[in-house]
Amino acid sequence: MRKLKLIVAYDGTDFAGWQIQAGGQSTVQGTLQHALRQILREPVHAIGSGRTDAGAHALGQVAHVVTRSRIEPSRLRHGLNSLLPPSITVRSVEDAPASFHARYSAVSKRYRYTIVRDVPLPFERRYVHHVRVPLDVPLMRREAKALLGRHDFRAFQRTGGSVEDTRRRITDVTLRRSADRLIFEIEGTGFLYTMVRSLIGTLIDIGRGRLPAGTIAAALRRRDRRLAGSTAPASGLCLVEVAYRSR
Amino acid sequence: MRKLKLIVAYDGTDFAGWQIQAGGQSTVQGTLQHALRQILREPVHAIGSGRTDAGAHALGQVAHVVTRSRIEPSRLRHGLNSLLPPSITVRSVEDAPASFHARYSAVSKRYRYTIVRDVPLPFERRYVHHVRVPLDVPLMRREAKALLGRHDFRAFQRTGGSVEDTRRRITDVTLRRSADRLIFEIEGTGFLYTMVRSLIGTLIDIGRGRLPAGTIAAALRRRDRRLAGSTAPASGLCLVEVAYRSR
Repeated sequence: MRKLKLIVAYDGTDFAGWQIQAGGQSTVQGTLQHALRQILREPVHAIGSGRTDAGAHALGQVAHVVTRSRIEPSRLRHGLNSLLPPSITVRSVEDAPASFHARYSAVSKRYRYTIVRDVPLPFERRYVHHVRVPLDVPLMRREAKALLGRHDFRAFQRTGGSVEDTRRRITDVTLRRSADRLIFEIEGTGFLYTMVRSLIGTLIDIGRGRLPAGTIAAALRRRDRRLAGSTAPASGLCLVEVAYRSR
Repeated sequence: MRKLKLIVAYDGTDFAGWQIQAGGQSTVQGTLQHALRQILREPVHAIGSGRTDAGAHALGQVAHVVTRSRIEPSRLRHGLNSLLPPSITVRSVEDAPASFHARYSAVSKRYRYTIVRDVPLPFERRYVHHVRVPLDVPLMRREAKALLGRHDFRAFQRTGGSVEDTRRRITDVTLRRSADRLIFEIEGTGFLYTMVRSLIGTLIDIGRGRLPAGTIAAALRRRDRRLAGSTAPASGLCLVEVAYRSR
C-alpha cells in the first residue's frame, strides 16, 4: 500500500465546510474523495488535517490517501484538477512515508483572517470580512499578544464543543495593515471548533470599543464563553498552512 | 443639473458585458442604472467610458450620470454599494464639470490581461486565463513592441465590426512575469471591439509556436483579420483605468 500527501486550496463559499456531513451537503472532503475514487478506482478515504468551517477557505489544507494505485503523483494531480470543480485546486501530490498522517502528524497550523474597512472589491468579496467602523489596531495588537503561549481556550470554543482537552499552544500572532486591509495571522499546535473566528470576533469587539481592554486575558483565565465576544464570519478565514515535522 | 463621475469595479463573470442589451440580459450598466434610479428617484442614464466584453472585468470603469438630485457624493456611493450586488462596487463618486463626458472626454484606457501557467487557485480562477503550454515570453515581448504607435487595427477587430475609423494609438505595452503569472498591460487612445483579446490570443499563438514571429506587424500592415490568431477568453481581461485630461 502507498500513502500520498495532497496539498489542497479551496474557495469554501459554496461548501458546508471540509468534513463530510451526514445530510449529504456538498463538502470539500466529499468532493475530493469522489474525484480520487474516480481516478484511483478504489474506495479510498481522503483524511484531512482537520475540519474547516462552512464558508472558510484554504490555501494549504493537507490530506492523505492510502491507495494500491501506482499512478504518478503529477498525473494524479492533473487528473484531479480536471475532475474537480474550479473551487477546489490540488496544489501538489507527493508520496509520503507509511507513518504519515494528515491529522496526527501535523505539528502546527497557520490561519489568516482578512478584514477590509472599505467596501470590498468584487474580486475579494468572498475572502474578506467588511468592518465599516474604525478599529483601534494598536489596542487589538496588544490584546492579541495575550494569546501567545499555552492556554485553555474553552472560552473561545463554540458552546457545546465536545473536545476533552481544550488547551492549545499559540506560537505566533500578528496583526498587520496592508493598504486598506487588516490581516490577522495566528499559528499554533491546533485550534478548537470556531476558535479563530471567535478570537477575531472578540478582537474586533475590543477594537471598536464594545468590549474593554483585557478581555482576551480575562476570558482565557476564567475560561468562560460569556466573557468572549462575537464570532466573526467564515468568509474572512483561510487555512494558510499545515506544518509537519521534517522527515 | 448636476454631473457626477463614478468609478466602478466589477466581476464581469456573470454579466453579458457592460452595455445594456436589447434581450434583457443582466449587464453592468443596466444593474448600475437601476440602482441609481432607485436612489435618485429620476430616470437617469449611466453613460460609460465604453463597453467591456461579456465576462470581462473592471477595476476602474468610469461612468457619468446627470441628475437633479443634491445628494452628497459619499452618501450616493454608500447607497449604491448597499443596493448593488457584490459583483459590482462603486469605488468613488464625485461632482464633475458640465463638460465632462465618460466616453468623449476619455483620453486613454489601460487594460490588463493575466495568464497563469499552473492550474489557477480557486481565488483567482475567474480573473485569469490558464495556458498550460510553455510560452516564449521574450519573443512575445518583441512582438508586442510592434503595437506601439498609431496603427490601423482592423485585423484585430471582430469580423463584422462596424466602426468606421479603425486607427488607434497605443502608448504603452508591457508583458511581465510575476511568480507563476504573465501579466500583459496595454494603454492606448481607444480599443476596438474584442481588440485586446484578439491581440492577446495572437501573442499566445506566437508564444506557443503556432504563428511565426512577425505576425503582429504583418497583420497591422495588411489589415487582414485572417493573419491574426485566436481570441483569448474574456476571463483574463480587466479594464484597469480610464484617463481624462486633468481639468
